[in-house]
Amino acid sequence: MAVDPRFFAPEAPLSLGQAAELTGADLAGDADFQIAGIASSAHARPGELAFLDGDGRAAPDLSPALQAVVTTPAMRGHVPEGVSVLETRFARHAHSVIAKALFRPRHLMPTGSERLNENASIHPKALIAPGAVVGAGAAIGEGTVVLPNAVIGPGVQIGRNCVIGAGVSIICALIGDHVSILSGARIGEAGFGVLSGPAGAEDAPHFGRVIIQDHVTIGANTCIDRGVFEDTIIGERTKIDNLCQIAHNVQLGRSVIVAAFGGISGSVRVGDGSMLGGRVGIADHVTVGERVSLAASAGLFRDVDAGETWGGTPAKPIRQWMREIAWLQKQTNPKKTS
Amino acid sequence: MAVDPRFFAPEAPLSLGQAAELTGADLAGDADFQIAGIASSAHARPGELAFLDGDGRAAPDLSPALQAVVTTPAMRGHVPEGVSVLETRFARHAHSVIAKALFRPRHLMPTGSERLNENASIHPKALIAPGAVVGAGAAIGEGTVVLPNAVIGPGVQIGRNCVIGAGVSIICALIGDHVSILSGARIGEAGFGVLSGPAGAEDAPHFGRVIIQDHVTIGANTCIDRGVFEDTIIGERTKIDNLCQIAHNVQLGRSVIVAAFGGISGSVRVGDGSMLGGRVGIADHVTVGERVSLAASAGLFRDVDAGETWGGTPAKPIRQWMREIAWLQKQTNPKKTS
Amino acid sequence: MAVDPRFFAPEAPLSLGQAAELTGADLAGDADFQIAGIASSAHARPGELAFLDGDGRAAPDLSPALQAVVTTPAMRGHVPEGVSVLETRFARHAHSVIAKALFRPRHLMPTGSERLNENASIHPKALIAPGAVVGAGAAIGEGTVVLPNAVIGPGVQIGRNCVIGAGVSIICALIGDHVSILSGARIGEAGFGVLSGPAGAEDAPHFGRVIIQDHVTIGANTCIDRGVFEDTIIGERTKIDNLCQIAHNVQLGRSVIVAAFGGISGSVRVGDGSMLGGRVGIADHVTVGERVSLAASAGLFRDVDAGETWGGTPAKPIRQWMREIAWLQKQTNPKKTS
Repeated sequence: MAVDPRFFAPEAPLSLGQAAELTGADLAGDADFQIAGIASSAHARPGELAFLDGDGRAAPDLSPALQAVVTTPAMRGHVPEGVSVLETRFARHAHSVIAKALFRPRHLMPTGSERLNENASIHPKALIAPGAVVGAGAAIGEGTVVLPNAVIGPGVQIGRNCVIGAGVSIICALIGDHVSILSGARIGEAGFGVLSGPAGAEDAPHFGRVIIQDHVTIGANTCIDRGVFEDTIIGERTKIDNLCQIAHNVQLGRSVIVAAFGGISGSVRVGDGSMLGGRVGIADHVTVGERVSLAASAGLFRDVDAGETWGGTPAKPIRQWMREIAWLQKQTNPKKTS
Repeated sequence: MAVDPRFFAPEAPLSLGQAAELTGADLAGDADFQIAGIASSAHARPGELAFLDGDGRAAPDLSPALQAVVTTPAMRGHVPEGVSVLETRFARHAHSVIAKALFRPRHLMPTGSERLNENASIHPKALIAPGAVVGAGAAIGEGTVVLPNAVIGPGVQIGRNCVIGAGVSIICALIGDHVSILSGARIGEAGFGVLSGPAGAEDAPHFGRVIIQDHVTIGANTCIDRGVFEDTIIGERTKIDNLCQIAHNVQLGRSVIVAAFGGISGSVRVGDGSMLGGRVGIADHVTVGERVSLAASAGLFRDVDAGETWGGTPAKPIRQWMREIAWLQKQTNPKKTS
Repeated sequence: MAVDPRFFAPEAPLSLGQAAELTGADLAGDADFQIAGIASSAHARPGELAFLDGDGRAAPDLSPALQAVVTTPAMRGHVPEGVSVLETRFARHAHSVIAKALFRPRHLMPTGSERLNENASIHPKALIAPGAVVGAGAAIGEGTVVLPNAVIGPGVQIGRNCVIGAGVSIICALIGDHVSILSGARIGEAGFGVLSGPAGAEDAPHFGRVIIQDHVTIGANTCIDRGVFEDTIIGERTKIDNLCQIAHNVQLGRSVIVAAFGGISGSVRVGDGSMLGGRVGIADHVTVGERVSLAASAGLFRDVDAGETWGGTPAKPIRQWMREIAWLQKQTNPKKTS
């Protein structure tokens, strides 16, 4: 996916040779290759610089269009013939240094001192309450209400008949029609990704977006992080309660229900019509089918097929969980007769 | 309970006949009945329109004053003689459409561009910090401090000697004296209620309030939702930590302690002096007696009598929980001798 | 530790005799002793007034420099010879009344109506976005970006090249260089401490600070409370996800990882390089060694040695937890053959 220029300003272009100089990585390949964008190695398109990290044991998932990659000595053997290589011990970190040199988040750039930026497009029938801030290039549709002290970042697109609650902040996001975002929700922040650099732990930069489809409701103080390179997507009519955490690259289907304190880790997929009880947690990269029910407080660490009901931590089919609870109680209850 | 006109502006009145037209429901009864208000069927008073939903198997709890009701074919048989009926497959949804036509949330209406609305009543000895927003009809008492960028919605009443933290938002709420609400808390948002409409999942509108009594403390980024038709009530001297979720229609007694990440689901009652450890969750409609202790991380799904101590998920008396933990460990520990 | 005058304004000094009058406590000792500060009894320095609470059974941890103490009848016998005593049934409460008479939080005092206080020190190469509020005596370093509607309290010191997200609030805190605080985080609020006074539950006042070292990242809507008398400290390069709660007096080491919904209770210590999975909770006063891993959803109630991996609730070594899960499933699975 191309980095969205509404949210990230392209800086001066960089050749692979310049990137090697910037990061101290060893270059093998075309020094004049112009880096047109950044991506993961699984999704890289022509012109994009990817990275390849890991211990070298498993073969990585590689885009057939891969042209240039930053990688570690351990992974070097997995790079196909003809792909240009920047090699360094801290490949993921070097890639992030290059990415940050190529793209600058617009929400960190100065855009004047006006609350409502003159380059924002606000429909005359939208209502912007006192104290709200709207950045350059943002658009707010007809009938949408932005409540006091909400912050709409540069380039953010909000459709018609939405309600944006008091003190909400939205960056790097596209919002459909009839969306309600209750007070204090945080849409589009960088996700939680820690990578190793020469000086220690560093934050992984995030260049994706948050896409919120029509008729979605987001609860108060809930957080939805933008993707690393791809998008975080919340499907139509999905309803999310207060104080939930939706991590980077998550895809929730349509009409998904997430009760309070729901925690959906990175890259999880949840199918249409699934229902998550209060305080359900799902580990990263798990796939949940359609119409799945997860009982309150479930901690899910594996995929679940469509239509199933699971509970417990680690979560399992609910009948098995219930059986374990009943059996354990029976074994230890001093009142039992046998 | 009547809808509070300080928070919801009454629109043009509606007859039952007009309501049938608005929703496409079948009318049986008095078409000229003027809908004076809205309620649940258990609490409806004369003139109020209630709804009756369900599969028809259990007899519903009905107010003796019930005069008019929106209901489904399945529930129709439970409607007493002489009560006017609007019948439709999506009864709860039709009721919400009528309710939204009758009452308009004032916090979504335009009230000018001034941060401190000229129709707010702010005591000369209250302190309103820069960036705070106070809506029309709000009142703030003597000695109360409203910190920067807090948002006090229209009609909100705040007593004396309170502290309202930075970035807090309060709507549809009445706050007593000596109340502290720490930064980022969200008071009075609509609760999480999903109902079925012809187009799919819809948000249940909320017409109740949040009542916070004297000497209550609410932690940072905690959320307390307003009730559906009745109120959410936080009793005197109750102390709630950061990042808690108190759902619609909850009633916490006096001097209740709720530690961080406490999650109290809809319509729960907690008695005076009860103590909830960190990350305790309580399922909806559960009643907890006075002076109950719930151990950290307990997930409670049933009522608990006064004075008891419970723990675990699902929660049980703490001795039984401890017994299970010890027994299970003994059975599986390779170091055990027998 | 002395109370930091950047965050708490010293009021008129108080003698022990005046303090007795203010609280109704019985004085035994030097009525003219000038109270120069406040502290816990374990850390009191010369001139500071401490308190001593408890049931009298265990011998308390006392500073050798203790000169004056507020205590209960039950604890009176533990006060060393020569130490002046204020005796009252509600010793902790009386101490807090005296403390609040001596020190006044600057963030609750009026400092004019300007968003950017004239007595704040903002580097010309810092970027302060529209709607942000900066208090008197605050300092913001070169290259730091403060996003819209963030609130920087009086006296707060922020270093170079930090990002302070939209709607963040910071009080009573010192922030290093290269720190990122994502939107809606709450830094420096009073912690959750409930003490008994004659009228019932009262909030314990907090006079400590939050110290955030270089290269730390704090997630969106995360809360970090200031200490009671000492500081809450977040070590260099520690990375904290969204919606976490870090309580008063916690000390996190360097390069600690805390995933979403992490809950660290009061006075917990976590060693360098430890990793906490999602929704990990740690009970108060627990000490976690270096390079410890806690599995997602663990609830830890005891100390863990360096290098160990624990999981479950109550948490135990991960192998034992895994064994229990497997054994229980085997005992109750109807498909098993024996």
